[in-house]
Amino acid sequence: MRISKRIENILGGEADGWGVFYKARAMKAAGEDVLELTIGEHDRKTDPAILRAMHESALSGNTGYAEVPGSAALRKAIARRVTARTGVQTESDNVIVTTGGQAGLFASHMAVCDTGDVALYLDPYYTTYPGTIRAAGANATPVPTRAENGFQPTKDDLESAPTGARSLLINSPNNPTGVVYAPDTLAMIADFVTTRDMWLISDEVYDTQIWQGQHLSPRALPGMAARTLVIGSMSKSHAMTGSRIGWIIAPRDIVTHLINLSTCTTYGVPGFIQDAALFALNAGDTLERDVSEVFARRRRLGQKILAGANALSLVPSSGAMYLMLDIRATGLSGEDFAYRLLEAERIAVMPGESFGHAAAGHVRVAMTVEDRRFADALKRLADFAAGLAG
Amino acid sequence: MRISKRIENILGGEADGWGVFYKARAMKAAGEDVLELTIGEHDRKTDPAILRAMHESALSGNTGYAEVPGSAALRKAIARRVTARTGVQTESDNVIVTTGGQAGLFASHMAVCDTGDVALYLDPYYTTYPGTIRAAGANATPVPTRAENGFQPTKDDLESAPTGARSLLINSPNNPTGVVYAPDTLAMIADFVTTRDMWLISDEVYDTQIWQGQHLSPRALPGMAARTLVIGSMSKSHAMTGSRIGWIIAPRDIVTHLINLSTCTTYGVPGFIQDAALFALNAGDTLERDVSEVFARRRRLGQKILAGANALSLVPSSGAMYLMLDIRATGLSGEDFAYRLLEAERIAVMPGESFGHAAAGHVRVAMTVEDRRFADALKRLADFAAGLAG
Repeated sequence: MRISKRIENILGGEADGWGVFYKARAMKAAGEDVLELTIGEHDRKTDPAILRAMHESALSGNTGYAEVPGSAALRKAIARRVTARTGVQTESDNVIVTTGGQAGLFASHMAVCDTGDVALYLDPYYTTYPGTIRAAGANATPVPTRAENGFQPTKDDLESAPTGARSLLINSPNNPTGVVYAPDTLAMIADFVTTRDMWLISDEVYDTQIWQGQHLSPRALPGMAARTLVIGSMSKSHAMTGSRIGWIIAPRDIVTHLINLSTCTTYGVPGFIQDAALFALNAGDTLERDVSEVFARRRRLGQKILAGANALSLVPSSGAMYLMLDIRATGLSGEDFAYRLLEAERIAVMPGESFGHAAAGHVRVAMTVEDRRFADALKRLADFAAGLAG
Repeated sequence: MRISKRIENILGGEADGWGVFYKARAMKAAGEDVLELTIGEHDRKTDPAILRAMHESALSGNTGYAEVPGSAALRKAIARRVTARTGVQTESDNVIVTTGGQAGLFASHMAVCDTGDVALYLDPYYTTYPGTIRAAGANATPVPTRAENGFQPTKDDLESAPTGARSLLINSPNNPTGVVYAPDTLAMIADFVTTRDMWLISDEVYDTQIWQGQHLSPRALPGMAARTLVIGSMSKSHAMTGSRIGWIIAPRDIVTHLINLSTCTTYGVPGFIQDAALFALNAGDTLERDVSEVFARRRRLGQKILAGANALSLVPSSGAMYLMLDIRATGLSGEDFAYRLLEAERIAVMPGESFGHAAAGHVRVAMTVEDRRFADALKRLADFAAGLAG
């Protein structure tokens, strides 16, 4: 029986560095003491107060079909939040609630690309990007950024991309690099997509994790609100990864179409989860700061520990919950390094190659274990690299 | 800015009888006493024991990323259930957990149809079917069934469909008609899709709501497991509509591809909701019977009340939570009838035209209010029809 070409093509030819991750999981399952610094999963769970709000909503009867675009109250709260954080006046009908940021990424590409359209994304990238674009039927085309530019895309990088593309997907603060795009970078990106009459899809799910400088949403740049779709999420800001709730901010007419799409793809997000998210957003800054500040602290720790390292260097990150380490001085690929580190030190990190060609010779370290173990792991990692280089 | 043709085309040219539903909601919002017998939402909420299981799972820490295909325990429980209920040996790797049955419908079409492929569905149909097929990029092509055949598709009905189609979507027990396909009907359907080398997508979300005869899954027919994708859900069987959890049962290789798709479209279903579903499935038959038996009782009530009616007749349904009434003797369309009933009696029902051309001149009555009010509403509806016809 023939299945669809589209679904067969979701997994493309990308380098797949996930072998290290699965090996680490298998070692743990076999009882070995492996320290995982791999995926972007907080070491804290969703706050019990949020879970109580969810349970109360469900017990009070919010267990039937919820409104597909999101409840009026939640859409309003998200619109208010986006207005306050970005300075762009945003209304409820610019908002659709989605099954996590991932559903937002997929729906955004479904909305602006037809089958065969070229959709650009910057490399390095979050692992699901190319597959998500291909699932939407579009032609996923990476645009490499370069380590020597601190992974900030340049005008030359973008102009090397094929013309005729329908969309560009960016992610700042960036996973995997932790890089936050500078105002100049974002202005250049806005200019590029405007000149080529493209859509900008801006994945801003790490927007509460800025350790240096400020988050700037490209939607706030002149003329950009009309051509930008922003992906937001409760996952990283509120340690709600498992609740699968996020949103898209977009022009009104796009939201109308996205509601039709959501009706046919998920039929919305559970009402009790929406109420939990509403509670969390209304709980104010303390809850969010509690979730984020731990990464700021571990990043400072990491900078201190790695300052004297000579076999590796830290990509100049200023956001997100990761450190990106350049290990090219060891002469190994990111993948080889990660496998050997796992074997020798029982520490699991993600090879840069998991996130595209541009991040080859790097490894990504998730700052997702408590400070002392994190510091110890980084020291052992640096010593291991020094041993290889020396 | 140009948006995708695909998303613009989700809403097609189908008759849209939802005006009655929205009018009823608006009247209620304005304080009027309107009885809604419209959507398939139980009048009971999700059982508190299920909600407690969900909360306990969340509090115990199951708030991070869940396994995308579904937890091992839940997939196993679903596989066991399907094996027991259908007689087809089903393993965990035949199962993927989805964001409700709706996500299952979408993913199934994504898996077997490419852009432009013809995908058939039987008319009358659940409202999202054509949009779901179009969202997957396929050419949604209705195949009418006929009131005079009790809405059982015939060989002639199917053979009138264009050749070259990739898939046929069926739904038994059927929404909106309540019709359960006879063994002969299903054998004929199996023969048809086999002869034309098509996929069968079998939406069986009402499989616990059979009031007469037995549910037969077409996947159980000879050779059909290899070409059938079955959609299941906790929504109707366990009154968990708002939890958005369902599944697809399919050949192993399809499931592998569906997991890739799910990674890119939703990243799975919340772990605590999966645990709630697992609890509900393990809770045994009593919980399910409690949810369903009320509809069996109301159906008997309805049959009794309408037995003597001369201006309308009951479609010979034997499942689901709806009654389908043929009101052609009144000389009105389903939509006109529904609007006038709403105006005169403050009773909201769904025009048959909401579910396709084949159900014109009918109205669908959801059996979703308590018995006494339900019986009273049916009597008033019958009197109203008699008044029109007389």
